[in-house]
Amino acid sequence: MEFIDELRKLKEQVKFSARFELDKDYDNIVIAGMGGSGIAGKIFQEIYTKKPVTVIDDYHIPEFVNEKTVFIGMSYSGNTEETISATNEAIKKGAMILLVTTGGKLSKMEGQKIAIPAGLQPRSSLGYMLLPLINTFMPQGDDVRERTYKALEKMDSDNRNMKEMAELIHDGDKIPVIYGCSPYRPVAYRWKTQLNENSKVLAYSSYFPELNHNDTAPLRDTYRKQEFIFFTFYTQSEPRVTKRIDVTSDLTDTKFIRIKPEGESLFEKLFYLIHYGDYLSYHLAIERKLDPSDVSIIEKLKHRLEQN
Amino acid sequence: MEFIDELRKLKEQVKFSARFELDKDYDNIVIAGMGGSGIAGKIFQEIYTKKPVTVIDDYHIPEFVNEKTVFIGMSYSGNTEETISATNEAIKKGAMILLVTTGGKLSKMEGQKIAIPAGLQPRSSLGYMLLPLINTFMPQGDDVRERTYKALEKMDSDNRNMKEMAELIHDGDKIPVIYGCSPYRPVAYRWKTQLNENSKVLAYSSYFPELNHNDTAPLRDTYRKQEFIFFTFYTQSEPRVTKRIDVTSDLTDTKFIRIKPEGESLFEKLFYLIHYGDYLSYHLAIERKLDPSDVSIIEKLKHRLEQN
Repeated sequence: MEFIDELRKLKEQVKFSARFELDKDYDNIVIAGMGGSGIAGKIFQEIYTKKPVTVIDDYHIPEFVNEKTVFIGMSYSGNTEETISATNEAIKKGAMILLVTTGGKLSKMEGQKIAIPAGLQPRSSLGYMLLPLINTFMPQGDDVRERTYKALEKMDSDNRNMKEMAELIHDGDKIPVIYGCSPYRPVAYRWKTQLNENSKVLAYSSYFPELNHNDTAPLRDTYRKQEFIFFTFYTQSEPRVTKRIDVTSDLTDTKFIRIKPEGESLFEKLFYLIHYGDYLSYHLAIERKLDPSDVSIIEKLKHRLEQN
Repeated sequence: MEFIDELRKLKEQVKFSARFELDKDYDNIVIAGMGGSGIAGKIFQEIYTKKPVTVIDDYHIPEFVNEKTVFIGMSYSGNTEETISATNEAIKKGAMILLVTTGGKLSKMEGQKIAIPAGLQPRSSLGYMLLPLINTFMPQGDDVRERTYKALEKMDSDNRNMKEMAELIHDGDKIPVIYGCSPYRPVAYRWKTQLNENSKVLAYSSYFPELNHNDTAPLRDTYRKQEFIFFTFYTQSEPRVTKRIDVTSDLTDTKFIRIKPEGESLFEKLFYLIHYGDYLSYHLAIERKLDPSDVSIIEKLKHRLEQN
């Protein structure tokens, strides 16, 4: 499949309706996933705050996991070694096991499973990873999904803005930095990872208001600042954060490219911002005359690790 | 106080013995803190895994906070607006309130308090912030503290290695990137923030194994890679992670400067790595002929925000 066709599949994913059945009470949620799967967990952690949610992007689970823990293991291939390791540990602790995968070893492990469509690059399955979590713990109405579908469809047919941003990065030979803000902080990280994998550029993310306590210091200085290009989500949902963005830009004399999410609900804005980053990274790959789908180095790395 | 004298106070902080009294059962821990205070929370979250620990570096607390939550508000000045906001919300929810501060508004709020010495820059109080958490939930023996004290003292009298690293960054006009690994991931972030505030350079951090799922892709390419210098913690505590570091360096043809923490216990290694970053950032400021203590831009920002 052409990579652009993969990107365009995101809109269908927001309509994915699979959900888990929770048949007993629980104290906390632990989600294990790497890369795109981990980002689904991180986004969910940010938007679902009724129970403590811990995201594991590593081999081991925390000591507190027990039979009152909902453990969710997510891996597109089903063979991600860190996620397999964490899931094995959670099974031994007697946690309630929920799994999202296309197949692989994970699909053979004990637990309630949601099968998602195969044939995509793992990073193109973010919707399939995130929707089972949202459907289970904070279901959205069909109207919201429909509006989100239409917004993404619109972006698929007109993404000139994102192409222009990609040209800005490429023509200026810039290193992209993306500043997020709650509840879209992991989406800034998603942009970073899409720029890494699709565009093959080093990129970094951080978030307001935390960055006002550290990152802001070098922004006044000119140490290599001209090498970077700064994007900031500008959601205007928390007035103090909006103020911080404006004052930071002014005081440090730094231009922030403000990305305002469209849509009424958090769900719409979330996917608007996610898709914006998809297109930005896609267009930057094209500008750089690189294949956005190629992540052979990561494949080689996995292969080398399997041999050892 | 000279900034170097502040750095040297870290060794005394590892002997700070104040602790909270927990007089009832609890389900989870929520820590609110920005910048250095937040990093203390993030480090604690990584090393204490008996209960879910959530770190808030923002204005609002999660919905799950209730009377079975231990809420810890930390601010050196006691006037950090995000932390005051979060603490107010936690008080309204009936959480068990614990506070660490030198004074300010936080010291006047209801809750059990630990007063820490004033007169430092907030980022130089990391030990004072972290020790009450460690003392309360995972107390360390005096022998471990004593060995840590001596290791930090040794670094105070000989930090030529860190000076050489700072020269490498400065002479090459490089942008530092620090790769951490569990359980020292927030220490990589600490290095980044110390480089931001003390050395006034843009710097970034990430961690293994997660970075193998994204950051690794551009490392093979040469897109601006020569602008960066890569440090990685090399703890050898998880064989698969050690392997990943070696294979990543080899496959992407990227030199990682490996920092091996000295010491026997996690506590010693933790402070060894923290202090290493302190000295690196200090020496880089000196190389750049800048005052490491100056963070006037952050002060100006706070002032501007207070007016609005």
